[in-house]
Amino acid sequence: MSDNKNQLKKETLGSLSFGEGRGEALYIIKIGGNVIDDSEKLHHFLNAFADLKGFKILVHGGGKMATKLGDEMGIEAQMIDGRRITDIETLRIVTMVYAGLINKKLVAQLQMNSCNAIGLSGADGNIITAKKRPIKKLTAKDGSIKEIDFGFVGDLEEKSIHTKNLSILIDNGFVPVFSAITHDGESQLLNTNADTIASVIAVAMSAHYETSLVYCFEKKGVLIDVDDENSVIREINPITYEELKTTGVITDGMLPKLHNAFEAINKGVKEVFIGKADDLTDLKNGTLFGTRLMK
Amino acid sequence: MSDNKNQLKKETLGSLSFGEGRGEALYIIKIGGNVIDDSEKLHHFLNAFADLKGFKILVHGGGKMATKLGDEMGIEAQMIDGRRITDIETLRIVTMVYAGLINKKLVAQLQMNSCNAIGLSGADGNIITAKKRPIKKLTAKDGSIKEIDFGFVGDLEEKSIHTKNLSILIDNGFVPVFSAITHDGESQLLNTNADTIASVIAVAMSAHYETSLVYCFEKKGVLIDVDDENSVIREINPITYEELKTTGVITDGMLPKLHNAFEAINKGVKEVFIGKADDLTDLKNGTLFGTRLMK
Repeated sequence: MSDNKNQLKKETLGSLSFGEGRGEALYIIKIGGNVIDDSEKLHHFLNAFADLKGFKILVHGGGKMATKLGDEMGIEAQMIDGRRITDIETLRIVTMVYAGLINKKLVAQLQMNSCNAIGLSGADGNIITAKKRPIKKLTAKDGSIKEIDFGFVGDLEEKSIHTKNLSILIDNGFVPVFSAITHDGESQLLNTNADTIASVIAVAMSAHYETSLVYCFEKKGVLIDVDDENSVIREINPITYEELKTTGVITDGMLPKLHNAFEAINKGVKEVFIGKADDLTDLKNGTLFGTRLMK
Repeated sequence: MSDNKNQLKKETLGSLSFGEGRGEALYIIKIGGNVIDDSEKLHHFLNAFADLKGFKILVHGGGKMATKLGDEMGIEAQMIDGRRITDIETLRIVTMVYAGLINKKLVAQLQMNSCNAIGLSGADGNIITAKKRPIKKLTAKDGSIKEIDFGFVGDLEEKSIHTKNLSILIDNGFVPVFSAITHDGESQLLNTNADTIASVIAVAMSAHYETSLVYCFEKKGVLIDVDDENSVIREINPITYEELKTTGVITDGMLPKLHNAFEAINKGVKEVFIGKADDLTDLKNGTLFGTRLMK
């Protein structure tokens, strides 16, 4: 009987040569420009991140530094419908700024705090493979067809993450720090949304770890009253989420964030936190950080 | 008797929790600007590097890209006595270009060739800790004292290399690709000579692996006649080295290279190769690559 059970276990986990569903906690924490561009906030955040016990991954966006460098080089950001187009010059800039300047700055500061950070792009260790976004055809109001080429932008799928290589790093005590640069496996680097990277990593790693996805943004959490930082909703589950949508409490800007968060939860992520980088110590102290979304 | 031997072995190796003197071959290969700036040469080299069997590490310098970016940004390189001074702006540029642009380009190309490259600065995984070069006082001919501040330049010592963290990566199938950016452990990034990084890694890792240090430069090897690429000296040992120096065969430019190579050999490196990046396939084929220096 016991043998059968072991046999079953072996078969179920047959394809796993690591992690093996141990269910250890893994935090995937994403920070954006509002933290990166403010050295005091960043310092405070990195201290709290370094102090957080257990397995963890940091994903960072870009901030204003890429735009600043583009300005210095006399290169204008190309925008279509409010979205930055990653032409070859922009890709060069974001590779330098995200994977070089910002990533190494974060790693050096974390190392000072005795956190064994290792800075990575998706190409490093083949950990994140993306697909170049195809040219999008849009039909304009007058019936004409408009083509939008986003350039060197990489979209992710669930199988984008090489969970084995990522687990090797984590299990050996490294703390991966990802810039939002990925690759296509054919030597092309691609610019990828940092929120999406964090989410896809959390979903993929939830097969081997108990994953918590943490988004740091400019507010203390999801607010009942957008002008009152003390009106944070502490917990949202799928039922209360529907209620909040129906009653119109959640503003339009928050809707996609929450939609993506619940999608990640439906795909295996244990919980998603949305809150302010300044408050990350709350996670460490076991008190609630920002708004917690869960099943 | 056998027990005593094991006891002795255990004591000798007591402090080693990895590698344990297994003596597996490890190549540390350094390329510079003449390869990085030439996309055809680089492509050819990376194919050969990817094909090389066994444990390996790539160390790369900068090339003209940093100067080019500085020009685009309107920042002039500061030089003292022919040496580039790494002021804060230069450090920013080399971090972007070396650790960002070049490093990720090399990694993405190696990944395409099924080589599991992982791009690193010395800060990543705390693998290379350097000391900021102190201000140098020089006495001029007129007796006045001149101070030279090289800026954010990092010098290495033998204990600079975290051999354990580096071994974890290598032993797990990653191929480290180092840019010449290091850190001081106090959050300061530093610019370090790539030749020195390769040499110090080779020496430090020779306690655990049988290390071969490979310098790629613009010539096919150490030449008897500097104008004749067919006059490569195949092997040099300490005795023939002295002879070559005495007879004046070795030109002034080669002397520091050979001096440093023999210093590495005296500190445990098995052999040092000096040759042309184009010929790296020779190493793979087991034939001699460039000039081989050994004990």
